[in-house]
Amino acid sequence: MDWLDQVQWDANGLVPAIAQQVGSNDVLMFAYMNREALARTTASGEAVYWSRSRQRLWRKGEESGHVQKVHELRLDCDNDVVLLKVEQLGGATGQGAIACHTGRHSCFFQLFKDGAWQIVEPVLKDPQRIHR
Amino acid sequence: MDWLDQVQWDANGLVPAIAQQVGSNDVLMFAYMNREALARTTASGEAVYWSRSRQRLWRKGEESGHVQKVHELRLDCDNDVVLLKVEQLGGATGQGAIACHTGRHSCFFQLFKDGAWQIVEPVLKDPQRIHR
Repeated sequence: MDWLDQVQWDANGLVPAIAQQVGSNDVLMFAYMNREALARTTASGEAVYWSRSRQRLWRKGEESGHVQKVHELRLDCDNDVVLLKVEQLGGATGQGAIACHTGRHSCFFQLFKDGAWQIVEPVLKDPQRIHR
Repeated sequence: MDWLDQVQWDANGLVPAIAQQVGSNDVLMFAYMNREALARTTASGEAVYWSRSRQRLWRKGEESGHVQKVHELRLDCDNDVVLLKVEQLGGATGQGAIACHTGRHSCFFQLFKDGAWQIVEPVLKDPQRIHR
């Protein structure tokens, strides 16, 4: 697969992957993919990552139901970072969709303000009720 | 500096950093920061990264003039990725601003389509004329 060989995998066989909400362009989360995760993502149309903590493939939403439907996949100028535009399922639609395991829309909910990281996004769903 | 200690630096003392255009929310580029780069970014209001290839601090735009004015800085749920909303200077304003060293608006100009990575964004400025 030529297009998979063009990706510059790091020493661990991974590339950083940024997931962005289609429409609003909100950055939802950041994770990693290995070759198989990227191949499965394009084959299925749903985001599959590599979990470094669990050392296994991780289909986003496999436990939470918060699947990411991939609308667009891009590669950067150095061929070593991928960007996905996704429709985040789970919770409500659009800004109400939940990407973060904390039950928030986006993982980037801590804003730097007055010399500190401050939580600025609400929990949309109790995380205890997300992860089965 | 408490807020710098809260960041989960990796084994190399780095965190991934995503730069997003304020307004359009286009993802412009991906790079890394070390502790000093992040401290300088907040102190100066302009993005400073750590260049892994050159092993030194790299004030974005120091050679190209394509400085990034930081409007917002966020940290993710695991405290190990930062997200910057920036006003990208250089080139025209908005979609015409140049973040990529190839002379394009964004580094993510290769779209996966029909089984291949296809270039879908124009070069706004000859890169030979960017890097002095």
